[in-house]
Amino acid sequence: MACKAMVLFSGGVDSATCLALAVEKYGKENVIPLSIRYGQKHEKEIRAAERILARYGVKGIELDLSAVFAYSGCSLLARSEAAVPEAPYAEQIAASGGAPVSTYVPFRNGLFLSCAASVALSLGCRSVWYGAHRDDAAGAAYPDCGEEFFRSMNSAVYEGSGKALRLEAPFIDKNKAQVVAEGLRLGVPYELTWSCYQGGEKPCGVCGTCIDRRRAFEANGVEDPALKLDRPGADK
Amino acid sequence: MACKAMVLFSGGVDSATCLALAVEKYGKENVIPLSIRYGQKHEKEIRAAERILARYGVKGIELDLSAVFAYSGCSLLARSEAAVPEAPYAEQIAASGGAPVSTYVPFRNGLFLSCAASVALSLGCRSVWYGAHRDDAAGAAYPDCGEEFFRSMNSAVYEGSGKALRLEAPFIDKNKAQVVAEGLRLGVPYELTWSCYQGGEKPCGVCGTCIDRRRAFEANGVEDPALKLDRPGADK
Repeated sequence: MACKAMVLFSGGVDSATCLALAVEKYGKENVIPLSIRYGQKHEKEIRAAERILARYGVKGIELDLSAVFAYSGCSLLARSEAAVPEAPYAEQIAASGGAPVSTYVPFRNGLFLSCAASVALSLGCRSVWYGAHRDDAAGAAYPDCGEEFFRSMNSAVYEGSGKALRLEAPFIDKNKAQVVAEGLRLGVPYELTWSCYQGGEKPCGVCGTCIDRRRAFEANGVEDPALKLDRPGADK
Repeated sequence: MACKAMVLFSGGVDSATCLALAVEKYGKENVIPLSIRYGQKHEKEIRAAERILARYGVKGIELDLSAVFAYSGCSLLARSEAAVPEAPYAEQIAASGGAPVSTYVPFRNGLFLSCAASVALSLGCRSVWYGAHRDDAAGAAYPDCGEEFFRSMNSAVYEGSGKALRLEAPFIDKNKAQVVAEGLRLGVPYELTWSCYQGGEKPCGVCGTCIDRRRAFEANGVEDPALKLDRPGADK
């Protein structure tokens, strides 16, 4: 039996690159993407995920875990009245004083990886992939993107599954510019991705993640296709 | 601010004892039980949980994660046609040849602890308690009850939460008889608990968990109150 892999797939730059890497390694027929609604302001990222999967010809799974965050005041959630900060992460980290940034969703990646582990075991997968990278972990902005978290979570999944499943985080020691470099090599359809945390009609360009992805593309000498706002077929 | 704790609370013997221990330590006003529906055949355990919480005068939270297990063939799930084995765990372990037993729900405890971590962080808790014990981990029957899993998961929760939250597993090095001994000291209302995996009108007495709990009470020289089948007020 072919080795199957599950990929946490939000529809953004990092997870789209992660998906492309898994498809390159295992073949698209052996990759199962999992996309999760959790009450995020930018739930339209899930539609981006669907468009990307259609492009790859891969069938994904969607789950809704919104109820888990019914008590959270995190600014990334639609239920919260707090605004998504319009500042680079470096400024947000300086302002938070070593605590996670306001768009940190409580233990989100732990929950998503656990959820993926449960589904992956049910479907006979041997690994769960996710696109965490060094820039997101920097300054403890998103502690559930860091290497210490990944090592522990990987061990928890391995031990808790009876040594049947492992996590893969191929970008854990890379920065976002390196992720994009890998994605450009792989031909990821970045024009279909969605990142902006505001979830408006067009990317705001000023939230932490809009700034991060623009810089990552600039570092590779290309324009971020998501910022070509007047492109035909842009999301409505 | 008082130190608040979340307790994974299924309505069975182990988690009821865990709840009582947390209430003893923090006071009932600082304990938040979390009960989870996941498509289990014995979903009536949730009603047992509700009755126990009413006795303690503690308000709990309920979540439904059934959708996560929509692809699982685990015999503990109502969606599965596989029967719950009617045999002691020692026999089930011998038959499974080192793999988890058929009532192992894929990475269930990892998922539940992650879910509890997300909710606990939202509500300002500093710890998440759960009632895993040595007997459940024995022979790799339930690998997500073992010490290796617990240590890794605890580290994942601690690192992934920005060092804000820890797990507590007070029975991780105890057997079920010792759990019951602790519960008898604490006056846990065991007559209100539900364990049987068959989820019928009355406990079957022959599934692994029925056998385990009867033996745990016997080791303490008392009758399992859940097996007093004709008690007034027994669950209907």
